Amino acid sequence: MKQWNDECGVFGIYNHPEAANLTYLGLHSLQHRGQESAGIVTSDERTMRFQLGMGLVQDIFSEGDLARLPGVHAIGHVRYSTTGSSALKNAQPFFVETVHGRIAFAHNGNLVNAGVLRHELEHQGSIFQGSSDTEVVAHLYARSKGEKLITRLVDALRRVKGAYSLVMLVEKRLVAVRDPNGFRPLVLGKVRDSYVVASETCALDLIEGQYIREVEPGELIMISSKGLESFRPFPPAATRQCIFEHIYFARPDSFVFGRQVYPVRQAFGRELAREHPVDADVVIPVPDSGIVAALGYAEASGVPFAMGLIRNHYVGRTFIEPEQSIRHFGVKLKLNAVREVLQGKRVVVVDDSIVRGTTSRKIVKMVREAGAREVHMRISSPPTRFPCYFGIDTPTQTELIASSHTVEEINRFLTSDSLGYLSRDALERATDHGPYAYCDACFTGVYPVAAEGRPGDPCEPQG
Amino acid sequence: MKQWNDECGVFGIYNHPEAANLTYLGLHSLQHRGQESAGIVTSDERTMRFQLGMGLVQDIFSEGDLARLPGVHAIGHVRYSTTGSSALKNAQPFFVETVHGRIAFAHNGNLVNAGVLRHELEHQGSIFQGSSDTEVVAHLYARSKGEKLITRLVDALRRVKGAYSLVMLVEKRLVAVRDPNGFRPLVLGKVRDSYVVASETCALDLIEGQYIREVEPGELIMISSKGLESFRPFPPAATRQCIFEHIYFARPDSFVFGRQVYPVRQAFGRELAREHPVDADVVIPVPDSGIVAALGYAEASGVPFAMGLIRNHYVGRTFIEPEQSIRHFGVKLKLNAVREVLQGKRVVVVDDSIVRGTTSRKIVKMVREAGAREVHMRISSPPTRFPCYFGIDTPTQTELIASSHTVEEINRFLTSDSLGYLSRDALERATDHGPYAYCDACFTGVYPVAAEGRPGDPCEPQG
Amino acid sequence: MKQWNDECGVFGIYNHPEAANLTYLGLHSLQHRGQESAGIVTSDERTMRFQLGMGLVQDIFSEGDLARLPGVHAIGHVRYSTTGSSALKNAQPFFVETVHGRIAFAHNGNLVNAGVLRHELEHQGSIFQGSSDTEVVAHLYARSKGEKLITRLVDALRRVKGAYSLVMLVEKRLVAVRDPNGFRPLVLGKVRDSYVVASETCALDLIEGQYIREVEPGELIMISSKGLESFRPFPPAATRQCIFEHIYFARPDSFVFGRQVYPVRQAFGRELAREHPVDADVVIPVPDSGIVAALGYAEASGVPFAMGLIRNHYVGRTFIEPEQSIRHFGVKLKLNAVREVLQGKRVVVVDDSIVRGTTSRKIVKMVREAGAREVHMRISSPPTRFPCYFGIDTPTQTELIASSHTVEEINRFLTSDSLGYLSRDALERATDHGPYAYCDACFTGVYPVAAEGRPGDPCEPQG
Amino acid sequence: MKQWNDECGVFGIYNHPEAANLTYLGLHSLQHRGQESAGIVTSDERTMRFQLGMGLVQDIFSEGDLARLPGVHAIGHVRYSTTGSSALKNAQPFFVETVHGRIAFAHNGNLVNAGVLRHELEHQGSIFQGSSDTEVVAHLYARSKGEKLITRLVDALRRVKGAYSLVMLVEKRLVAVRDPNGFRPLVLGKVRDSYVVASETCALDLIEGQYIREVEPGELIMISSKGLESFRPFPPAATRQCIFEHIYFARPDSFVFGRQVYPVRQAFGRELAREHPVDADVVIPVPDSGIVAALGYAEASGVPFAMGLIRNHYVGRTFIEPEQSIRHFGVKLKLNAVREVLQGKRVVVVDDSIVRGTTSRKIVKMVREAGAREVHMRISSPPTRFPCYFGIDTPTQTELIASSHTVEEINRFLTSDSLGYLSRDALERATDHGPYAYCDACFTGVYPVAAEGRPGDPCEPQG
Repeated sequence: MKQWNDECGVFGIYNHPEAANLTYLGLHSLQHRGQESAGIVTSDERTMRFQLGMGLVQDIFSEGDLARLPGVHAIGHVRYSTTGSSALKNAQPFFVETVHGRIAFAHNGNLVNAGVLRHELEHQGSIFQGSSDTEVVAHLYARSKGEKLITRLVDALRRVKGAYSLVMLVEKRLVAVRDPNGFRPLVLGKVRDSYVVASETCALDLIEGQYIREVEPGELIMISSKGLESFRPFPPAATRQCIFEHIYFARPDSFVFGRQVYPVRQAFGRELAREHPVDADVVIPVPDSGIVAALGYAEASGVPFAMGLIRNHYVGRTFIEPEQSIRHFGVKLKLNAVREVLQGKRVVVVDDSIVRGTTSRKIVKMVREAGAREVHMRISSPPTRFPCYFGIDTPTQTELIASSHTVEEINRFLTSDSLGYLSRDALERATDHGPYAYCDACFTGVYPVAAEGRPGDPCEPQG
Repeated sequence: MKQWNDECGVFGIYNHPEAANLTYLGLHSLQHRGQESAGIVTSDERTMRFQLGMGLVQDIFSEGDLARLPGVHAIGHVRYSTTGSSALKNAQPFFVETVHGRIAFAHNGNLVNAGVLRHELEHQGSIFQGSSDTEVVAHLYARSKGEKLITRLVDALRRVKGAYSLVMLVEKRLVAVRDPNGFRPLVLGKVRDSYVVASETCALDLIEGQYIREVEPGELIMISSKGLESFRPFPPAATRQCIFEHIYFARPDSFVFGRQVYPVRQAFGRELAREHPVDADVVIPVPDSGIVAALGYAEASGVPFAMGLIRNHYVGRTFIEPEQSIRHFGVKLKLNAVREVLQGKRVVVVDDSIVRGTTSRKIVKMVREAGAREVHMRISSPPTRFPCYFGIDTPTQTELIASSHTVEEINRFLTSDSLGYLSRDALERATDHGPYAYCDACFTGVYPVAAEGRPGDPCEPQG
Repeated sequence: MKQWNDECGVFGIYNHPEAANLTYLGLHSLQHRGQESAGIVTSDERTMRFQLGMGLVQDIFSEGDLARLPGVHAIGHVRYSTTGSSALKNAQPFFVETVHGRIAFAHNGNLVNAGVLRHELEHQGSIFQGSSDTEVVAHLYARSKGEKLITRLVDALRRVKGAYSLVMLVEKRLVAVRDPNGFRPLVLGKVRDSYVVASETCALDLIEGQYIREVEPGELIMISSKGLESFRPFPPAATRQCIFEHIYFARPDSFVFGRQVYPVRQAFGRELAREHPVDADVVIPVPDSGIVAALGYAEASGVPFAMGLIRNHYVGRTFIEPEQSIRHFGVKLKLNAVREVLQGKRVVVVDDSIVRGTTSRKIVKMVREAGAREVHMRISSPPTRFPCYFGIDTPTQTELIASSHTVEEINRFLTSDSLGYLSRDALERATDHGPYAYCDACFTGVYPVAAEGRPGDPCEPQG
Repeated sequence: MKQWNDECGVFGIYNHPEAANLTYLGLHSLQHRGQESAGIVTSDERTMRFQLGMGLVQDIFSEGDLARLPGVHAIGHVRYSTTGSSALKNAQPFFVETVHGRIAFAHNGNLVNAGVLRHELEHQGSIFQGSSDTEVVAHLYARSKGEKLITRLVDALRRVKGAYSLVMLVEKRLVAVRDPNGFRPLVLGKVRDSYVVASETCALDLIEGQYIREVEPGELIMISSKGLESFRPFPPAATRQCIFEHIYFARPDSFVFGRQVYPVRQAFGRELAREHPVDADVVIPVPDSGIVAALGYAEASGVPFAMGLIRNHYVGRTFIEPEQSIRHFGVKLKLNAVREVLQGKRVVVVDDSIVRGTTSRKIVKMVREAGAREVHMRISSPPTRFPCYFGIDTPTQTELIASSHTVEEINRFLTSDSLGYLSRDALERATDHGPYAYCDACFTGVYPVAAEGRPGDPCEPQG
């Protein structure tokens, strides 16, 4: 329903007798970060094996499949990707043979100079099978003259610009590295004696892992028989963590960027109440993503909270729409209004963001048709006006309603009685992260890293 | 996760050019009432066609499938059923050819004398292909000497005892009938000029239908080219509607038994707060079924509400458990605790019911491990002590923890700091339905209709 | 490619520790008798289990499926049937519960009074789920007042008219019975100490069984802990075995009706050469069904045999035809001509039969385009002029080209230089079965058993 | 059943409005050359699209799939490959993006220096995703500094040694090239005005194409808007066409190496009769591959031909074997003996080759158990003693029974009464190709091109 699609989730585990099983569970916990394809690569220190597939983790891997992935180290990936038969080409982990041996990469992020580098590599004779940025990293790695794995990887990563939380597996080593700006999350933990890395801590929780700390922006961690080694191979850079992880992407029970998402998201709601109060009878969220902010709004405003929209959790990919059209069909398949909660009420509807505005407009109408006297939209983030180049699959700028419309115009389009967005200042207050440490290019258009590209070949965001 | 499995959902539509499409959507809205199999039968007034399948509605029916189900009348069914290759045998609608022509039944409920009747019918030479009660009704109908459809159907239904909300389709007529006690819900509505019947109103909402009224307990409605006719062919009986529809089964946005579920469920929560108050810092629901009652509890108690448990919505049927066991694995796959919400807090956990107690115990422990100082379980219904024979697939009595344990013993088993169940009186107050009109046999063991059965052949509940 | 579709194949085994596995293999051997659905029912003397599915035996049953069918007795069935979602309804064995316990039937044949009986049964209140004749037999059995299984079965079978080679399983007994005319084949054998019944002996060969004898026309065999008992419960009737089993249906390596198919089919070819000699350079078969007769023709005529048409064995159900049409597309997908064999030659093409004539016409043209100077069609059976009501799914009479055209007219339609059919006398000579013991109604229209039916409800042939 | 697995089949078409459809049909005709995976790449002169899949052509491509492959040029590939989830990685056409644009290769053959080249390329920084030789060619092509497509391709191919019949597609051009020795077949044809290339002529026959000529050994053909251009970019080499195409691989209706397979194979049988006559009553083939040679043997010897072994055409990949073992199970699933043909007879069994000898031994025993008095094996090729490195997936040398056993020893192992192989001289006579132009390394061990390899990394044959 959200018109921006999530990026990817990565997972890695070193030295565990059930590496594939735990990776499978870790990926299940990260399923919200990508539902289109998934893959696991394992190593038993001599042989590396892999399986990739389209769909949900639980549908791709049977018990027999996991048994055919023996090994003590493993990495895994869930991905949002474009549909079609070619999608499997871009499924990850990306697994290749190089002069330095077999190597597998699982990547969350997007490189803004991938197009330029790819062009350059192609000119040097490289061939590309898919369109993922990860393939570029693998080529750079393979071409490096560095003698040690770490040298080659750093060689490669010094060439790339943009966002990457990258997990890499070779026969006997697991590497985790986060770009200097730290756009995307990556955490380090342990299951008993085995190190684990994952996009979010919820992956640790399921497998009874302990959270140790974040992989820091610009940090490269190598785990081998020598234990864990930490490197800082890149020039220092300002931290620019993706604020949308806190607004929308990450699970509320996860810790990302050192903070649990739930209280941050709740604080957004509280700030939103302060900035955009309204005389109302009830606060309702757009479930599920708006729930925590709505609770914060209700708490700070004193307006009672209710679940005025009920979500149908059985909605899958495709639905057949009758010819005799149904108003707000796409939204109705997922949401239904609770008349007794809304009837005659002045209603505050809390959502995390507005993309094109069409869904929000349908929601406003659905709430009003259920009897609401007034409908006030409150958005727990600033207007989204610019596309993301750091790992989120957003619509183009022209499709983002806030790129070309004022708040008042958007309010009219939505047919709501009022509309309030959270300010960037309030966002900063709520995250309470000392000096402002987040990337908010989607609100400001100020990109921490400039995109490079051949004319006519804009660097498309990819997971 | 709930160890009782839902019954079934039924839907019917008369005289609509897109009968199959709307039935498909109606069944999608009723998917929470049964996820194991589904089916649609249509009639174009001359030919009847059908399709049945295992799984979710959206996975069973492709656009092509629906196109191969032309017709202006249709009925549909979603069902919970036992697994295995034989399950398709019991999928509904039950579609047969009789001397009176082709006939299809979609049934929600359970007949307590099905075993006896089946035995009797077999002695008269009937053969049975599956084990559903519906097959018994079909045989009784086929054997009736009645000259009119309605006579034959009433002949059949006067023989059966128990719960049925039944929808029946023949070439040119649609029939809906509800047993005299009215155990299971059934509502009547309209989409433009076409009559619709459905288990819950949420099915009307999706297709832009208008709710007219309930099909009354003991009422038989026939819809034909003559319009809608209502009959009262059965002796009057006390209304005994399933209270669990309000506690757990129905969607909160639905109207069942003439009341919207959300405010009833919320009232349960309020009553629960009054009967079992506790000094606490936060009220959290077991999502999703406990959310509305928890909101009611928070409202009445003044204790803040929070989503202290986050649900993973990607959990399907089977999961591979690692050998190195994970504590509370089954619960952890679905739920994760939010540490920042629970840490150091006195927590009230609201759930709708306790079956075996094993899941609740895992939840208590998970909440405590996330840092809760106290964990108080509050259940928005009385202790469930007896199995249901009227359409719910409950465990046997010995598996119901409340059948053999006091509340204090259950509290100890759960390892909670306190445990409170809603009283039957409070339940009655909250439903506010004048004279007590609900079946509460699962709490009291007082069954409105006595079961009949051959020795050693107890009438097993079936959807 | 043949426009008549095969009937069914049945198999049964009594008292073998691997009953399901051997039934699976037996059905594989009988796969040529039906490729649309298959099923197995087993009994461990207390519980009966079943699995049915659409498709080939090897695709329906996995190792796990067979493991879930424990038991020492089993019956199985392969079936040709109409496509569509309803087809599974008619898949066999037909497995029901009656007052006499659970019972399973596997049936090869067609009852000419099934419609009448069904009508009668419906009037007595029976309900029918599918359209197979077997369901009629089951109803008659269930309604019988007979006290013993055999009495009830004979009661039922005395009512039916037509063709049946029937295998029946109850908990502790296996029954095999063949109609008095013996239309369809059924053989008795042994695997070590376990009795086996099967449509053809090729099913015995695969499982290392020994052929004992045919189940005789009109014989009923019951196998139980008392051993094998033979009954003759029906009035004597003239033997009328389906001549098309020898012409086309049965595998050449099988014994049916007491004779191996190969030499009979070869004798047809020899007789054909004598009746329709021609000055030719090469004899080629339409593979695979025409091969043996073509060898007989070559032998008797002295004209060399060659495989002038090569068959592509990878042809499955559906193929996408290009818009720019390809001449003889359907035939070309399966057959290709061998130019060097045909170039400049006078060619005799031997096929077993002609149905609509369209395929044969394409073959004649394909052979001629490959360079043949003359093309002489020789058919190893008489002109097929009448539909079969005894177990073969033939086109309607009007579609059979020989029903309305003389041999000379057919020859012109085929564009062949000459056309010769085997005479009925020659057929009789070749089968050499003493007094004529075969049903040849498809050639003569003289049906050994008259069909009964309600007006407008012709008894459709079903497997 | 044959223990050597076929290589691959390739197809290409230039400038046809239904390029994908015709490629699909062409691949269907070549299905016998590879059943494990297939793929099609199309070009509409601006965009190239592809689809790959595991299984048979007809199961991989639906009508919708083909519609999603618009374009006027196309190439396709069928492949035998190892099983497992990684197999799709090696499915072809191999489709990549290079500095020179998108490019697709479909390859039949095997390069004997692929390992060396791959090692070298990896040292230059290339990364490999699969293990096919084709990926090596693609890398060499991409790294070439040549300015024109043809220069780059020739650059690449001058580096490789071994067998290749290669079809290549870029946006606006189709290239077909055959290695200088011409190991594998490749023919040129036309469908109306569109050029077609294919492994065998049977692919032309199905789509109503006209055979023009072979692509000559060492010839490179480029088809573009300028028409067809032929190049001879390689130093001349002795023609060494794979004799096994005539013995076993190619379809009898195909022309390969300028001759139709059927008469060549028949001549093998005639020569075999001359070299190894025997007093016998009947000649039977091991179907289907032995049929044509057996016909030749029968013709030359005057011993009557019969189909003494019947093949079950429904045998797929996996079969469940009962625990109580069945003698010759694997062979019995596919073949059954015809007792009446064999009983009391002196039987000549003609097969095309013997690999391990285990299957032949089972066949001898099966024939004898069916009553044969004598069993004489006749093989229409010399003893296969050496593995193939030019595109056939043979067992290792030690598994080839003829590598370590004399004919007399093999005869004893087979338990046959006599065994005769065709001599190399007779083979030469039968092919009648002037100076000996075939590769017969599998008989002699004299490989036309020497293999290169890193120690311990023998170049494994790949399709």
